Amino acid sequence: MSVQSVLAYADDHQPQFLDELKTFLGIPSISTLPDRAGDVQRTAEWLADHMRSIGLEHVQVVPTAGHPVVLADWLHAPGRPTVLVYGHYDVQPVDPLELWESDPFRPEVRDENLYARGASDDKGPFFAHLKAVEAYLRTEGALPVNLKIICEGEEEIGSPNLDPLIYARAAELAADLALISDTTILGPDQPSIVYGLRGLCYMEVEVTGPDHDLHSGQYGGAVHNPLQVLCEMIASLHDAQGRVTIPGFYDKVRPLSSEERAELARVPYEEDHLRQETGVPKSWGEAGYTIAERIGARPTLEVNGMIGGWTGPGSKTVLPARALAKISMRLVADQDPDEIDRLFTEHIRRIAPDTVRVEIRGLAHGAPALVERDVPAMAAAARAYEAGFGVRPVFAREGGSIPVVATFQKALGIPTILLGLGLPDDRFHAPNEKFSLANFYRGIATIIHFHSALVGMLAE
Amino acid sequence: MSVQSVLAYADDHQPQFLDELKTFLGIPSISTLPDRAGDVQRTAEWLADHMRSIGLEHVQVVPTAGHPVVLADWLHAPGRPTVLVYGHYDVQPVDPLELWESDPFRPEVRDENLYARGASDDKGPFFAHLKAVEAYLRTEGALPVNLKIICEGEEEIGSPNLDPLIYARAAELAADLALISDTTILGPDQPSIVYGLRGLCYMEVEVTGPDHDLHSGQYGGAVHNPLQVLCEMIASLHDAQGRVTIPGFYDKVRPLSSEERAELARVPYEEDHLRQETGVPKSWGEAGYTIAERIGARPTLEVNGMIGGWTGPGSKTVLPARALAKISMRLVADQDPDEIDRLFTEHIRRIAPDTVRVEIRGLAHGAPALVERDVPAMAAAARAYEAGFGVRPVFAREGGSIPVVATFQKALGIPTILLGLGLPDDRFHAPNEKFSLANFYRGIATIIHFHSALVGMLAE
Repeated sequence: MSVQSVLAYADDHQPQFLDELKTFLGIPSISTLPDRAGDVQRTAEWLADHMRSIGLEHVQVVPTAGHPVVLADWLHAPGRPTVLVYGHYDVQPVDPLELWESDPFRPEVRDENLYARGASDDKGPFFAHLKAVEAYLRTEGALPVNLKIICEGEEEIGSPNLDPLIYARAAELAADLALISDTTILGPDQPSIVYGLRGLCYMEVEVTGPDHDLHSGQYGGAVHNPLQVLCEMIASLHDAQGRVTIPGFYDKVRPLSSEERAELARVPYEEDHLRQETGVPKSWGEAGYTIAERIGARPTLEVNGMIGGWTGPGSKTVLPARALAKISMRLVADQDPDEIDRLFTEHIRRIAPDTVRVEIRGLAHGAPALVERDVPAMAAAARAYEAGFGVRPVFAREGGSIPVVATFQKALGIPTILLGLGLPDDRFHAPNEKFSLANFYRGIATIIHFHSALVGMLAE
Repeated sequence: MSVQSVLAYADDHQPQFLDELKTFLGIPSISTLPDRAGDVQRTAEWLADHMRSIGLEHVQVVPTAGHPVVLADWLHAPGRPTVLVYGHYDVQPVDPLELWESDPFRPEVRDENLYARGASDDKGPFFAHLKAVEAYLRTEGALPVNLKIICEGEEEIGSPNLDPLIYARAAELAADLALISDTTILGPDQPSIVYGLRGLCYMEVEVTGPDHDLHSGQYGGAVHNPLQVLCEMIASLHDAQGRVTIPGFYDKVRPLSSEERAELARVPYEEDHLRQETGVPKSWGEAGYTIAERIGARPTLEVNGMIGGWTGPGSKTVLPARALAKISMRLVADQDPDEIDRLFTEHIRRIAPDTVRVEIRGLAHGAPALVERDVPAMAAAARAYEAGFGVRPVFAREGGSIPVVATFQKALGIPTILLGLGLPDDRFHAPNEKFSLANFYRGIATIIHFHSALVGMLAE
């Protein structure tokens, strides 16, 4: 089997690949919005049709209690390893829409980047896997490995229906390793392999005071303002050192070894870099840790959203009846999302004043993951990146959450290789999300090399 | 001149008065919403036409830089006092619309209350003045006093164009006293005369961190979250005793004398009453003061609204680029809104961390007022309430703001009588605002008695 002809096919078909990816990105599969459910379903069906068209087999759109999962495979390499490719075809909401320079669902190429919601998270990188498969099957008629694919439509809402499906179909999904492209690499010329991922515990806190909005003049000073209460509770969740104050929050955090801290120090993530990427005047965070450690190796608590009272133009002298905050915690090994949910809930109940009513709801949970670094597949990934990007990758921890990595370990007993293709400035979850065309094409080449290198590594 | 025939006319024409008030309330004159400017203008014109139809003279719709002011007079009582009636024809926004039991701009009578936005604040009470005029002019062909009317369309946005107009037309507006029905009385059977009003200083604080929304996993822990910063700043604005912590905030507050505290203690405003009116589990406020004092005689700071990040259904793991809060302070004599604006702004700048950018904007200012209690007009008001409601009124301080009272004092040198007709449960600024029909009709009678009593008082 010649990898050269496979790579040549991929090179020759870049315009077609780009057109197809634009079609995939054009369907607004926003999983969190109930009125987009039809679009999410339509995306799954488009994906299944496309998988069939490139030669994948046993393609199924599997219904769940929420959005469907798309499954497929190609299993004609007896004696060779089986790779389980995971991706997600759902995307984040697009607001504030006015900050987008082009329609988030009319993909547009500007300066060698493809702009669209989901371009880099995760439709583009996942699609690169399909294009690698196509290149192999159209040129060689075969893949060097056995391949299984699982692509879900609920990653952006915490994958509520994925784990049960993986456990129920564990035999059908059995593989030697999982392969996911849903992380970022350090830069266009510095690929990196993520071995640590944070988990997630996403909560909603609603404070209710009066049973209707009051006139702030008529009642202000005698009624505890729910927004004030919520601000006071949220303010108390961090101390002056930037540490989370919830009792027990850090109990299960695995301390960083000096060896790992030294390795992470090689990840070039400096103050200037952060300022440039984000536009903040200055970094912030937990005292005693570097930026890379704060993002990758330490748990955090964020206010993701908050609303209450009058938020339109001008002034309205209202004392609001209620205030709502969305608060999520990023977790690291070995924190348990269920336990953190409980600690958070107990703490908020403890600090809530008796002048208001407080409701606390858990919205999403995901376990953190630390991937083994000494498996042959890691070496194959390093070799593939070097071939695809021309640079040896570094090892890094990432701040985001891919809870399925923990599930693959628990349910299928397999490690996951995170073959990231996004860039740090791809604006995941934000306006003007983009995917570098160079990374799309290099990514396809890297995946082609990975499958081939994996066979070689296991043979070595 | 017989007051009896005037009162009889008012009694006989209740259905017509109610129909006309419904028409007045049906025009959505929301002054804060730019796209309602046409409706605000239309309301002013309807009002002017109505004033002409009942016999008022020199009716003018005076343009301003914002919404127009309606002026009118009737000046055929030589040697008699001149009363300047003030009201406002603009209303608050209606959201959250889904909490209204009937359309806020299709007035509906239920259980002897008229439900509509502006029913009690201030279209209904102001309209009672016009109906008193009509009753006099249709029966006696004259009023017992000279009357001038000024009705503005920007009270709910802080009257930005009213003061310049009053100063510019001071000669035209010259009067012996001002008369305003834009406050509430204690209960349907307990009229009260408000002699103290709080002022207002309404600010907007915007915190910007990153220049776009970030993925909370990719950056959380290394970037200061603007919502967290805003919560921390807001939380620090009150101490554990419920006092405002802005340095200098209380410096100009006139202390309550023990005599005034004793008088205010007669206002029956208890814990149970507050709970029942608002639905809160428990009252709250500045240590060392009663509920009536906290609302009427002490300055406060309220968060009127706040927004940032993801506020839709479900979860979105965003670290928001910006967070916005609307914060207003209710002021008491002798606090100065301009000085409080400066103290607030300086304090927020001082406490803002250097990890974010903060913008502070002043949205509205209004001076507090304490009205003299020993003028003959106060005695006339007491006598009018007793005749209209059958009960002697008590004296009270109110928490709301009517900045024009301070302007009338400064620009025209006249005291203001606050002849309130609203009830505490009228839901000013909130969904299901209503005006008691009994108070509408008793209010018209009270105003008829007031004009007559005023002449008697001055003759005594």
